[in-house]
Amino acid sequence: MADQIEELDVPPEEDAEEGEVYELGRRQVDGILYAVEIDDRDKLTELMDPLHAADIADLLEQITPYDRAHLIRLYDREFDGEILSELDESIREEVIGVLKPQVLAQAVRDMDSDDVVDLVEDLEDHQQEAILDALEDADRAAVEQSLAWPEYSAGRLMQREVVMAPEHWNVGQAIDHLRGTPEDALPAQFYHIVMVDPRLHPVGNITLGKLMRSRREVPLSDLLEETFQIMPATLDEGDVAYAFNQYHLISAPVVDAEGRLIGVITIDDAMVVLDEEHEEDILRLAGVDGESTLSDSIRATTRRRLPWLAVNLVTAIAASLVIAQFELAIAQIVALAVLMPIVASMGGNAGTQSLTVAVRAIATKDLTGSNVWRVIRRECAVGLINGLVFAVVMGIVGVIWFGSPALGYVIAVAMVINMVVAGLAGTGIPIVLERIGVDPALASGAFVTTVTDIVGFFAFLGLAALVLL
Amino acid sequence: MADQIEELDVPPEEDAEEGEVYELGRRQVDGILYAVEIDDRDKLTELMDPLHAADIADLLEQITPYDRAHLIRLYDREFDGEILSELDESIREEVIGVLKPQVLAQAVRDMDSDDVVDLVEDLEDHQQEAILDALEDADRAAVEQSLAWPEYSAGRLMQREVVMAPEHWNVGQAIDHLRGTPEDALPAQFYHIVMVDPRLHPVGNITLGKLMRSRREVPLSDLLEETFQIMPATLDEGDVAYAFNQYHLISAPVVDAEGRLIGVITIDDAMVVLDEEHEEDILRLAGVDGESTLSDSIRATTRRRLPWLAVNLVTAIAASLVIAQFELAIAQIVALAVLMPIVASMGGNAGTQSLTVAVRAIATKDLTGSNVWRVIRRECAVGLINGLVFAVVMGIVGVIWFGSPALGYVIAVAMVINMVVAGLAGTGIPIVLERIGVDPALASGAFVTTVTDIVGFFAFLGLAALVLL
Repeated sequence: MADQIEELDVPPEEDAEEGEVYELGRRQVDGILYAVEIDDRDKLTELMDPLHAADIADLLEQITPYDRAHLIRLYDREFDGEILSELDESIREEVIGVLKPQVLAQAVRDMDSDDVVDLVEDLEDHQQEAILDALEDADRAAVEQSLAWPEYSAGRLMQREVVMAPEHWNVGQAIDHLRGTPEDALPAQFYHIVMVDPRLHPVGNITLGKLMRSRREVPLSDLLEETFQIMPATLDEGDVAYAFNQYHLISAPVVDAEGRLIGVITIDDAMVVLDEEHEEDILRLAGVDGESTLSDSIRATTRRRLPWLAVNLVTAIAASLVIAQFELAIAQIVALAVLMPIVASMGGNAGTQSLTVAVRAIATKDLTGSNVWRVIRRECAVGLINGLVFAVVMGIVGVIWFGSPALGYVIAVAMVINMVVAGLAGTGIPIVLERIGVDPALASGAFVTTVTDIVGFFAFLGLAALVLL
Repeated sequence: MADQIEELDVPPEEDAEEGEVYELGRRQVDGILYAVEIDDRDKLTELMDPLHAADIADLLEQITPYDRAHLIRLYDREFDGEILSELDESIREEVIGVLKPQVLAQAVRDMDSDDVVDLVEDLEDHQQEAILDALEDADRAAVEQSLAWPEYSAGRLMQREVVMAPEHWNVGQAIDHLRGTPEDALPAQFYHIVMVDPRLHPVGNITLGKLMRSRREVPLSDLLEETFQIMPATLDEGDVAYAFNQYHLISAPVVDAEGRLIGVITIDDAMVVLDEEHEEDILRLAGVDGESTLSDSIRATTRRRLPWLAVNLVTAIAASLVIAQFELAIAQIVALAVLMPIVASMGGNAGTQSLTVAVRAIATKDLTGSNVWRVIRRECAVGLINGLVFAVVMGIVGVIWFGSPALGYVIAVAMVINMVVAGLAGTGIPIVLERIGVDPALASGAFVTTVTDIVGFFAFLGLAALVLL
C-alpha cells in the first residue's frame, strides 16, 4: 500500500509534468519484462506485488503474446481472478488458455459472483464450463441464475448478495441482523440497507452512515433516503448507467417481474457501464466497431473496420456519379474540379458537427419531442450563418485565384446551400434513425456525408453549368 | 416516491418498447407548460413535486426562454438549489438572473459546499458575489477555500467534510465519535472513515459496513481496505476520474502539498467528471467545442463551430492546390475529376478510424511507450489489407465504368498508398500531439484529413499524369 501512495504523490517521470495518477511507468514494464526474460520468479513477484489488478491487466494487454504467455506461466502462483475480469475480451480467452487449470480454478473461487458473471458471459462454452466447474455449487448456482438474464441487462450487472430489512424494524434490530449475518452472505461492498415489504418489494434505502449515527430504538422508516430508484432486472445496462448518473444514485435494488428484490447494483458497476457505453459511441461515430480494443489482432481489426469503409465506398461512388453528370462543364472549366472538393468537405465537416451534437443529445435524453424542432431550426440557422461567412471568403478566393467573379458567385451560393443542408441532415438523420430503432451513433455518419457530398457537388457543378456555360 | 417507482416499472408510452428508466415524458412536459400558461401555481407544484432536481433541470433546458422565465417565477417558492447545480452553464446564469434574490439565497443555503463550488465557479463575478453573500460565514469560508484550488482540480471536486480517526482507535471509539459529531459537520453521504497519522496524513480507509459488523474492541487498523489511493488537491479532475474508474474506488482522501488530509472525493462526483470528459472528447473529435450544449444560443453555437470550419477550409484549399497542379491532366481525362474524391474520401475515413482508436487509447492510458510501435505497425498493416481489398474493387470499377485498365490500375495503387498513409497518420499524429502537450482529441482530425486529402489527390493525379499522359 505504501508504494501506491508513494507513486501517487511522485508519479513516474514520463508523466510527472502532468502530475497524473498512473502506476504503470515505462520503467516498471521494462523491469517486469526483464525479470520474465531471465526467468526470475521472485524478482517478477516482487515487481508485480504493488500493482493493482487493473494495472496488471493493462500490462498484459500492452506486451506481446509471447511475453504474455511467458509472464503468466512464471507468475501463475499469485495469479488473481480480478486480473481476468479487468482484461480486454480479445486477450482474456488467450490468457485463460495459458493458465494451468488449478490456477484458474483458485483464481475464480476468490471472485465475487457478479465479477464471475462478467468474466464468463463472453467466454466460449468450453472455457465457460471449465470456470463454472471450478466454483462451489452455491456460487455456481448464483452465477447461472444471473446468466439466465439477458445480456447487457440489470440482472447481469447486479450482485445477488443484498442486505434487507422489514418495514417494522428499528435501528437496533438492523444492526444486530448485520452483525449476525455471516461474512460470505454479505456483498463485498455495501452502502445501503434495502427496506422491503412482506412481499419482498423494495420500499426504501437506508444509508449505513445514518443507521450508525441513530439510537437503537429509532424505527428504520424514519431514516429512508430521499432518492430511491428500483431497476427491473430486464432493464438495459445503458439505462441503468443513465439513471445512476442522472439521479446520483449510490446503489439501487433490482427486482424480478413480480417486483421482488433479487439483487443490488452499485455505482461502481454503473460507472464501468457508463464508460463502456461512451467508448462504444465514440468508436461508432468514427465508423469503428464499438468493441474494438488496442489488443485486437490485425485480422480482427480489419474485420471491424472494413464494413464501414465498404459503405463509404458506395457513398463515394454515388457522389462521383453526380460529378460524372457534369463532365462536360469540368472539361470546359477545369477550375470546377479544383474547387468542388472544398464545397463537399465544408459541408461534410459542418454535418459531422451537427450530427455529433444530435447523437449525444439523444444519448443523454436532452433531445426530446419538446425541443426537437427548436434544435433543428437552430442547426439550420447556424449552418446559414457559417455558410454566409465562408461563402464570402470562398467568393473572394474564387475571384482572386481564377479571376472569375461568376465562379466566385457560384461557389459562394453552393457553400451556403450545402451548409444549411448539413445542419438539417446532421440533426434530422440521427433523430429519424433513433425513431426507427437504429443506433444513431452507428449509422448517421455515412448518411450525413453522403447527403453533403451529393448536395455539395450537385449545387456547385449544377450552378456552374447554368451560370458559366 | 411512489410515482418514481411507478414510472420505473411502467415507463411513459413513447419509451415503453425500450423499457427505459426515464421520468420526463412528453405528456408531463406539456402538462407542466399548460399549468404555466394558465398561471396555475398549485397545479404546477403538483406536477413538479414528483420530479427529481435533475429532471427539472432537463425540463428547463428543453423549453423556450420565455416559458422558462414564466415557469420559474411561478414555481420559485419551491425552487431547490440542486436544480441550479444540475443546469447547463449556458442557461444557469439566465435562471439565476430570473430568480428572486431571497429565493436564490434560500436555495443556495440548502446545498452541500461542494455543490455550491460547482455552481459558483462558472458564474460571473456579480452573480458569484450574490450567492456567496447568501451563505453563512462558515459555509462561505469553505466554498472560498475550495475556489482557491485551480479549476478542474481535485481540490475543487472534493467535499471538505471528512470523517477521520487516529491510528490507535478501535471500533467502539470510532462509532462513538460518529454518534457525537453534529449532523452538519458530516458529509451528506459518506462510505468510509479515513484513518490518519498524527500529522494528519491519510494511512487507510475503513468501510462503514466492516465497522458496523465488528466488535467494539477491534482496532481500526485491522479493518483497513485493500485498495486505497490518495489524491493531491492539485490533481487534474480527469486523472481523478481515471483513478476511480481504473481502481474501482468508492471514495478517496484529498491531501494538500504537505500531504495533510483536507477533503474527500466520492465516486458519484468522479462519475460526473468521467461523463463530462467523455462528452468533451466526443465533441472535440467532431470539431465542436467541448463545452457545447443543446441549450446554447445560435450565436454561441456559431462561435463554437466556426473556428474548426475555418481550419477545415484552409486544409481543403491546400488539397485544392494539389489538384490545381494537375489541371492539364484533368482537362485531358475528365474521369480523373470524377474518381479523385473517392480516393481522398476512403483515406479520410480510414484515417478517422485509426485516429479515434488512438485518441481513446491515449485517454485510457492503454497506448504507452511499451506498445506504441506495435500499434503503429498494426494500423499500417490494416491500412494495407483494406487498401488492397478496395484497390481491387476500384480497379474493376475503373475498368467497367471508363473502360480503361490503366485508369483502374492507377486508382488501385493510389488507394493502397492512401490507406497505408491513413493508418500511419491516424496513429502517429495523435501520439505526437500528445507528446507535445496538445489535446489529441481536439487537433488530430484536421491534420489527419489534410494528410489523407493531399496524399490521396497527389497519388491519384500524379500517377495518372505519369501513366496516362
